Amino acid sequence: MIKPLIAITMGDPTGVGPEVIVRALANPEIREICRPVVLGDRLAMERAVKDTGERLEIREVAHEEIGEESSLSVINLLELSSLTSEEMEYGRPGIAAGKVMYDYIVEAVRLCQTGAADAMATAPINKEALNRAGFRYPGHTELLAELTGTKDFVMMLAGDRLRVTLVTIHDALRDVPELLTIERVLSTIRITHRDLHRYFRKNPRIAVLALNPHCGEGGLFGDEEERIIKPAVMAAQGEGIDAAGPLSADTLFHFAAKGEYDAVVCMYHDQGLIPLKLLHFDDGVNVTLGLPIIRTSVDHGTAYNLAGTGKASERSMTAAIRLATEMAKK
Amino acid sequence: MIKPLIAITMGDPTGVGPEVIVRALANPEIREICRPVVLGDRLAMERAVKDTGERLEIREVAHEEIGEESSLSVINLLELSSLTSEEMEYGRPGIAAGKVMYDYIVEAVRLCQTGAADAMATAPINKEALNRAGFRYPGHTELLAELTGTKDFVMMLAGDRLRVTLVTIHDALRDVPELLTIERVLSTIRITHRDLHRYFRKNPRIAVLALNPHCGEGGLFGDEEERIIKPAVMAAQGEGIDAAGPLSADTLFHFAAKGEYDAVVCMYHDQGLIPLKLLHFDDGVNVTLGLPIIRTSVDHGTAYNLAGTGKASERSMTAAIRLATEMAKK
Repeated sequence: MIKPLIAITMGDPTGVGPEVIVRALANPEIREICRPVVLGDRLAMERAVKDTGERLEIREVAHEEIGEESSLSVINLLELSSLTSEEMEYGRPGIAAGKVMYDYIVEAVRLCQTGAADAMATAPINKEALNRAGFRYPGHTELLAELTGTKDFVMMLAGDRLRVTLVTIHDALRDVPELLTIERVLSTIRITHRDLHRYFRKNPRIAVLALNPHCGEGGLFGDEEERIIKPAVMAAQGEGIDAAGPLSADTLFHFAAKGEYDAVVCMYHDQGLIPLKLLHFDDGVNVTLGLPIIRTSVDHGTAYNLAGTGKASERSMTAAIRLATEMAKK
Repeated sequence: MIKPLIAITMGDPTGVGPEVIVRALANPEIREICRPVVLGDRLAMERAVKDTGERLEIREVAHEEIGEESSLSVINLLELSSLTSEEMEYGRPGIAAGKVMYDYIVEAVRLCQTGAADAMATAPINKEALNRAGFRYPGHTELLAELTGTKDFVMMLAGDRLRVTLVTIHDALRDVPELLTIERVLSTIRITHRDLHRYFRKNPRIAVLALNPHCGEGGLFGDEEERIIKPAVMAAQGEGIDAAGPLSADTLFHFAAKGEYDAVVCMYHDQGLIPLKLLHFDDGVNVTLGLPIIRTSVDHGTAYNLAGTGKASERSMTAAIRLATEMAKK
């Protein structure tokens, strides 16, 4: 079987993206399972090679060569920008950096859509820089949704022991109850089911969490369980989805981490991210479900305090590339 | 040094309380560190001995004898009720059961207040039965607060790897943002500091969590961090308390579990209980801080589905007795 071709976007040139990519691609196990190509900037990648002390060479490839396998000591680069050293000063992303982050993503999406690449894995971007460069998106995910014409997408965080998907993401906790609707919870369950079924495990077992402590204890504190979550779970069950809930969030993760569920649908960001990061602080992967292409990402940010030190852990990037590869094989 | 005397309330006679007490007291390590006395019912305790298959004898003691050490094969019982077998039918607590749950707690508090006992550890009660018997409290903690004339108390959940305290407890998530005030957050930090300092570790390092994801990302989603939590943390620091925050809840628990903090002040129930139960599903202990007496509790309920089967894990009760003992020694 031919190894999947993974398009890796370099992300913010002024953050830890380039160096975690270099570290991940210095790992022979990763080279064994996939053909990686980096969409990025030569100078930034060469600086990352130097900063990490890896013995690797950056080789520019043309579009028609991106699938060519290189030796272990070579990283294939599709060069999409030529930043000056000033434009890629660590921790100081300007308009030029904002623009190239965008360009890498657009090209990775195009490669996946045309079938030239099998999946994409992304390094972290800086939203403010993206916005200043004229691209007004709350983040990666929304940009990917627009580029692929996707209306309903779901953010999943995944590790070996736990997968969580989120009904609401970057919202104030105060706004969460109003944002929850039967349709929105149901849509998240559906997309979680469909993409897990496709990429991970047939007929996945899905846990759907309650919003309130102790499931609202029979309406004593909160009624979203009865009004919204339960009807959504029942509708999902009616469609043949193996969904259970609403389940009390405090006890559920013990069972999910033991393998009793394939994914946990969470009502808000920290409900899912607290247990995920407790179990997978370094090696969690962000996966966008619902897209017509396969996209994984590191689950960390640009970490400017570490950029250039060579100290940033590459484990999340390694896990993102590995997971993209596994999904591409399905 | 004389071993601390721990008053153990039997809780709901129709739940798993009696059997987890029997199991915990069958453990020679527990008998090694403390002098336990059960406040409860002879028939219920004898049934629990039979259900668990432990070779133990229940011995009634008078008030003046509660501190007498018994042999490993004997459990000292201060008999406070004489229930009929009908009144203690598993899973069916009536008014009689509701009344005795209350009586055990009142007596344990009295013993602690007079110095006859050094600490109390409680088995689970049933709130509805308590209410039906005429004692209208949301739970154990509020009853203990009233009995001891305590206005400001804090619920802590503790295990070897993590301790969390809660600013709000059994409230709908929708109500949490309005319930947070500078004074309330500050009071929780103060009580956490004071009781940890007294019972656990001098000058404890306290993490205070944000309410919103990513600490609200500079006000982008939610302003409770700036308006409420930050001023409370600064006021606590001004009082010499080693408090840090507001800290992003998703990443913080990784560091807390590594031992970088002695306690984590959480804004709402599931924020603290999700990680606590993930790390300490079976051996978490509920501790009420702010009381003039020492009180620990199991962190599980009456578990009627297990009552009488002898299958309920005693690990939380064992941990509760052990922790009460350690606190009493300070």
